[in-house]
Amino acid sequence: MKNLLSAADLNREAAIEILDIAEEMAGVNHRDIKKLPTLRGKTVVNLFFEDSTRTRISFELAEKRLSADVINFTAKGSSVSKGESLKDTAQTLEAMGADAVVIRHSASGAAYKLAHSGWINGSIINAGDGTHEHPTQALLDAFTMRKRIHGDSSLGKDLDGVNVAIVGDILHSRVARSNLILLNTLGAQVHFIAPPTLLPANLSRLSAELHYSLDDAIESENLDVVMMLRIQTERMNASYFPSEREYSRIWGFNAQRLAKLKSSAIVMHPGPMNRGLEIDAISADSPQSTVLEQVTNGVSVRMAVLYALLSGERNTNAN
Amino acid sequence: MKNLLSAADLNREAAIEILDIAEEMAGVNHRDIKKLPTLRGKTVVNLFFEDSTRTRISFELAEKRLSADVINFTAKGSSVSKGESLKDTAQTLEAMGADAVVIRHSASGAAYKLAHSGWINGSIINAGDGTHEHPTQALLDAFTMRKRIHGDSSLGKDLDGVNVAIVGDILHSRVARSNLILLNTLGAQVHFIAPPTLLPANLSRLSAELHYSLDDAIESENLDVVMMLRIQTERMNASYFPSEREYSRIWGFNAQRLAKLKSSAIVMHPGPMNRGLEIDAISADSPQSTVLEQVTNGVSVRMAVLYALLSGERNTNAN
Amino acid sequence: MKNLLSAADLNREAAIEILDIAEEMAGVNHRDIKKLPTLRGKTVVNLFFEDSTRTRISFELAEKRLSADVINFTAKGSSVSKGESLKDTAQTLEAMGADAVVIRHSASGAAYKLAHSGWINGSIINAGDGTHEHPTQALLDAFTMRKRIHGDSSLGKDLDGVNVAIVGDILHSRVARSNLILLNTLGAQVHFIAPPTLLPANLSRLSAELHYSLDDAIESENLDVVMMLRIQTERMNASYFPSEREYSRIWGFNAQRLAKLKSSAIVMHPGPMNRGLEIDAISADSPQSTVLEQVTNGVSVRMAVLYALLSGERNTNAN
Repeated sequence: MKNLLSAADLNREAAIEILDIAEEMAGVNHRDIKKLPTLRGKTVVNLFFEDSTRTRISFELAEKRLSADVINFTAKGSSVSKGESLKDTAQTLEAMGADAVVIRHSASGAAYKLAHSGWINGSIINAGDGTHEHPTQALLDAFTMRKRIHGDSSLGKDLDGVNVAIVGDILHSRVARSNLILLNTLGAQVHFIAPPTLLPANLSRLSAELHYSLDDAIESENLDVVMMLRIQTERMNASYFPSEREYSRIWGFNAQRLAKLKSSAIVMHPGPMNRGLEIDAISADSPQSTVLEQVTNGVSVRMAVLYALLSGERNTNAN
Repeated sequence: MKNLLSAADLNREAAIEILDIAEEMAGVNHRDIKKLPTLRGKTVVNLFFEDSTRTRISFELAEKRLSADVINFTAKGSSVSKGESLKDTAQTLEAMGADAVVIRHSASGAAYKLAHSGWINGSIINAGDGTHEHPTQALLDAFTMRKRIHGDSSLGKDLDGVNVAIVGDILHSRVARSNLILLNTLGAQVHFIAPPTLLPANLSRLSAELHYSLDDAIESENLDVVMMLRIQTERMNASYFPSEREYSRIWGFNAQRLAKLKSSAIVMHPGPMNRGLEIDAISADSPQSTVLEQVTNGVSVRMAVLYALLSGERNTNAN
Repeated sequence: MKNLLSAADLNREAAIEILDIAEEMAGVNHRDIKKLPTLRGKTVVNLFFEDSTRTRISFELAEKRLSADVINFTAKGSSVSKGESLKDTAQTLEAMGADAVVIRHSASGAAYKLAHSGWINGSIINAGDGTHEHPTQALLDAFTMRKRIHGDSSLGKDLDGVNVAIVGDILHSRVARSNLILLNTLGAQVHFIAPPTLLPANLSRLSAELHYSLDDAIESENLDVVMMLRIQTERMNASYFPSEREYSRIWGFNAQRLAKLKSSAIVMHPGPMNRGLEIDAISADSPQSTVLEQVTNGVSVRMAVLYALLSGERNTNAN
């Protein structure tokens, strides 16, 4: 496997292998263990065309714990977001000997374009491209679910039969899309819960149950996981979007809804949260919330992805 | 000792221990000595909500010379300066496994809030919070005084009986406040010299002599140290502030005043200087000026603080 | 040799030595070779007063591959570009123990000022100062020419008798100036090709043939190298500047002109290119173009410069 552009790059075997490597990395992250020399002498460039301090730092930490040389390239302004500049930027990074490029871009498909253009021979990792995909987020979410469900006996396990609800602006969410793909691969049952205007019209070959009522889904679906999506507040005035108050009341997660879940169910959020909008403080901070575990697991999962792509032990498990 | 939030966290013994460690670190900083492996595998985050290239670089150098993994997090804009966002940012850094967070914030008390919220288990170092405290500045100032006064026989020494004048906008100065506390701890006599509107009304249990005339204080107090504070020029138009010309004439340090000090006295400034305002070029560049030594000592003192907080040899000397 | 401020700091022997070290470094840059410990424990500050992501990353990579501790200092805004602030910034970096400062500044002479002020004892590397010089660019260009012309037997070779055309806004180009000096030193014949208003009136003791027609020079001069300069588009509306269309037609490089060069000739550009203005896509991407090789060689050459200045084996080959 050379690149990680989409959750669809991973078949069941490859996905489980990365989750298993991430378990080992989580051990390394215990504070008394020194960093690993795995990527010593390798150069990883974080090419961020879109602000995301949280995701950038998670990758940067993962890279440094593996002893890579890290270059941060934050490209703001319009000139570098044009097609030709992406080409020149990419070819420059390749010419400088980047072993991997972690790319975040507001344009859907930017990571694919980098990977399939031939501009770069190193590995490409998609750290979020427009409304398209965010595969390391899906991996860290799957890791978090697996860990909560299977605990210390997670190694080798998938998510067969797990009921996962994803709630919010599904239509524009790269997190929802990447999760749908990976959860399908790992055997989970996905429920999309949203107002009709925020649901996708077509899931192509993927499988999800669509719901218009969060309360009904909580009532009837024996949910193991409720994943709240972050509301992009800049979308809140669009005509297809409910009012903030209505959204919060009907599709927001809160203590009342938490009380109706089974006690083993977990509440997830990719962060940063809009507290009081898509999630209230009580459920965000409850023991059933995995918000901070997701952050912790993000570093381990990104170490695992870098390891799998760059450590020289190329595998052929990918689709 | 887990955190360094205030100069008051250090009793005499703990303060001297850090100054003594800083002496050793100053030796390491000789250019032919390699960096120390002390913090290898530890992650230090520089969380700067306020611009301060100089302080950030001093910490970054100290961290890198101790082989830490360094993450720079510069949080600009209003969204992250709100209370809740500080919580989410802090919890995220904790979840990512930060061993220490160096925080600079425009709000007084921000470092305390971080430390006492329970959001972060790692060490917190206050790199300046509003008008409140800047304890590593006070330590580097004390280190500089001790070195000038005791020279090679500084180890284990305090500042008993040393006469230190601090001149300028005492009321709004975190440097003055932290210095007052630490200098009291180390036995020095502090003189605050300022226009009445820029002096604090209440020193609580701390001890300083208040003066309204720099010339009188120079005349009568046998000063060993004159520390000029930086004027925050954005305050110069406030009603409680003298005009620039008046300020410079009455409370600025200059060659004439330098000539009246004893020859062993030193002139300090935390930098960056407003040359021609609170200090003139001749005294800033004179052999009695320690401005650049303070910068050099800043790196050693910050290495010592990081070492004391993070090297695993927890001591119990703190208050 | 302590500093690299100008291509004139290098006599023939010193220049060839750096090119030879760069050959070794190019070997190190093969992806299966680990980084070098050469500058372990040394601190290099990239002091960029002018945006140049490309040059900054090239230096940063070179520094990290030699295991230096790297501090990025990006100084934007007018306060730090004033003379006094440069002094205070420089003295601060010196006091912090910087072993080398890589400076990029919009003012011609800024690197000289740093080096000759006595503010800094460490090495100074000029990474571009105004319209004055950019010596590492000239070195990477010379390295690229030598490699294309002499291949694997480049070691020890100069550029004797090589015909190099430099085309564009010569008058305002630090790349042209540094190349002229170094190419003279290495024995190449330089041809400056530009509209009369963009040619220098006086080459002092340096030697170049001046041409007003690119087509005539291609016809008559048996060129080995055509180096296109980047047009600073902010200059395009100045009275001494041709219109964009006229510039492109008369002085731009394109497929028709490429076809008239001998097949061994190369086309160079320091990047980033304005495709369609000073160079068209066909020639930029042709096998005769060395644009990306220049980027690759830039890292090796900068490693060589850092090695020559900082590795402790001071040589005395400089002028």
